[in-house]
Amino acid sequence: MARLSFVGLGLGPTGTSLEGLDEIRRSDVAYLEYYTAPHEPELIGRLQGATGRALEVVDRAFVEDGSRILSEAEKKNVVLAVLGDPMIATTHDELRARAIRRSIETRVIHAATIASAAASESGLHYYKFSRTVTITRESVGKLTQAYRILHENLLEGAHTLLLLEYDVVSGEGVSPTDAMQGLLLAEASYKRGVVSEGTFALVLSRIGRKDALLAAGRIAELSRRDFGTAPHCVVIPGKLHFTELDAVAAIFAVKQSDVRGNSDAVVRTAQTLVPRYVAKTRKALGSVREKTQSQYGSVLENVELYTKDAERFLADGEDEMAMLSVGYAEGLLDSLSFAGLVKIDW
Amino acid sequence: MARLSFVGLGLGPTGTSLEGLDEIRRSDVAYLEYYTAPHEPELIGRLQGATGRALEVVDRAFVEDGSRILSEAEKKNVVLAVLGDPMIATTHDELRARAIRRSIETRVIHAATIASAAASESGLHYYKFSRTVTITRESVGKLTQAYRILHENLLEGAHTLLLLEYDVVSGEGVSPTDAMQGLLLAEASYKRGVVSEGTFALVLSRIGRKDALLAAGRIAELSRRDFGTAPHCVVIPGKLHFTELDAVAAIFAVKQSDVRGNSDAVVRTAQTLVPRYVAKTRKALGSVREKTQSQYGSVLENVELYTKDAERFLADGEDEMAMLSVGYAEGLLDSLSFAGLVKIDW
Repeated sequence: MARLSFVGLGLGPTGTSLEGLDEIRRSDVAYLEYYTAPHEPELIGRLQGATGRALEVVDRAFVEDGSRILSEAEKKNVVLAVLGDPMIATTHDELRARAIRRSIETRVIHAATIASAAASESGLHYYKFSRTVTITRESVGKLTQAYRILHENLLEGAHTLLLLEYDVVSGEGVSPTDAMQGLLLAEASYKRGVVSEGTFALVLSRIGRKDALLAAGRIAELSRRDFGTAPHCVVIPGKLHFTELDAVAAIFAVKQSDVRGNSDAVVRTAQTLVPRYVAKTRKALGSVREKTQSQYGSVLENVELYTKDAERFLADGEDEMAMLSVGYAEGLLDSLSFAGLVKIDW
Repeated sequence: MARLSFVGLGLGPTGTSLEGLDEIRRSDVAYLEYYTAPHEPELIGRLQGATGRALEVVDRAFVEDGSRILSEAEKKNVVLAVLGDPMIATTHDELRARAIRRSIETRVIHAATIASAAASESGLHYYKFSRTVTITRESVGKLTQAYRILHENLLEGAHTLLLLEYDVVSGEGVSPTDAMQGLLLAEASYKRGVVSEGTFALVLSRIGRKDALLAAGRIAELSRRDFGTAPHCVVIPGKLHFTELDAVAAIFAVKQSDVRGNSDAVVRTAQTLVPRYVAKTRKALGSVREKTQSQYGSVLENVELYTKDAERFLADGEDEMAMLSVGYAEGLLDSLSFAGLVKIDW
């Protein structure tokens, strides 16, 4: 039997699953890829102790090239052990596709990844996270895409996870301070009111390890602190449910009154306009009803129905339909006025 | 030492990490919570074999109530073992917050979760996934929110993961067929061109287990197949990079020419609706003008102005304002008809 197995090592030196350890044990050749998180001396020792196999540490170039891995996997059981979940990185998807095209059997053994663990550990509801942003050393000076995604997520009331790059070879990475200052820089340039010194953020450092550190606060405070060695990530909460508020306060050991979401400051056009137009239309409807004959009853009934529709659409996040409905309701009422049939006090 | 530890069991009977097993081994009381994936007889055996500890199976109500867990954790090491990653479920966040407020030490031991494993295993780039949707048995007949999120994700070019609910107590769940037909039903009702029989989808069943099954194809074909027992999830790809096209073809064993993204076919709600409503309103306006006296001239003039406004707003990307304007124009015209003053051929 020959195959190529991608084995996830999870978050710390003891994050590998029973199945992953079995797979390393059964391998003829085992590689340990090591470039996105700082070296943990304990990891190799634990893996070798638990499996009785020596692991050869390889770098990104070796995996991207992949030719030795693929030719060995045609005859032997080859394991590529990877921190976190093995298929989060594009490189591994590509290597797997190449193996399959060469008729090499492949296996994937999943493990915890910072991408889901950080979100889940934050106390925020996991399914309220929207698109994740990776901040690289290259992009941190001009966070155009990160700023746009953060804006969209906040408009939806969704939370945003920022993963901060770390390069194990150079020992360099993006610190939480770099990331937060990068966002403030983007704000200064795009001015959409997405982020400010008052933005409430969470910093999660070394999640899943013994020296994990959690911190919550406003960017003004957090961006002045040193959170130690990588990996780090930052969460910008959107709209908070009261159970999230409660969980964040407990988990991050801050006062409930200091915890706040950042979506309220960022508003959708319809959120401002629909309630305003609905109120205006209802008031006008009331004034017309007092002084109008029943011959326009069908119009007035429809005005009422469509203002209700507008509210329902808005609650469902159907902004365009909410605007259409409230516009229609206003039009119905105004028409009677334009036609000189009723006098409306708007 | 007393504490409450949340231990993730990952995806299969051997998905628990070394650290998780150690934590169960050191516990005084160990509970196994079991309700979101079908029972795997092997799991309990493997856990007890690896840790030498008996685990008591508990249900959702026991965990939601939590009073016994919390009072025990004040004096003993209590483990709550959970399938997948332990902090994905809101219930566990809340229990953890309650423990912290009672000054009970808490620990979280992460593991693979379907929410990241399915996305990572699909061959699509992990960071192009946007908001995940959970489809419950309750919601599958009326997928308003799922349809809207899918629409937003596709507009961004992002991929969507649909997690399908399964209830271990009743043995009932949402099948991939249910989910896909639910989306087609939502399409029939909302008509935004988000999903069709031609939509290209991925079905991932029992990810991380020996009997995992991957299938790719159009909804027309996939929704006729039986994918066996839960858990299942469905991925609707947005815009595909060529390396994603390549990886999906290899991993799902389909021809490259059969793989396609679904973002190109999707347009913003207002882009579909505003031109349609403007055309309809203009046609109706024409028919009214032919047969109506000038006493309603002011109404008709405003109908014309507001349809023009709607087109201008749409061109400027002001979708909500475009919908408001065209709705208002329609309302003006319809009011005359509701009041019995003119007859409109819509």
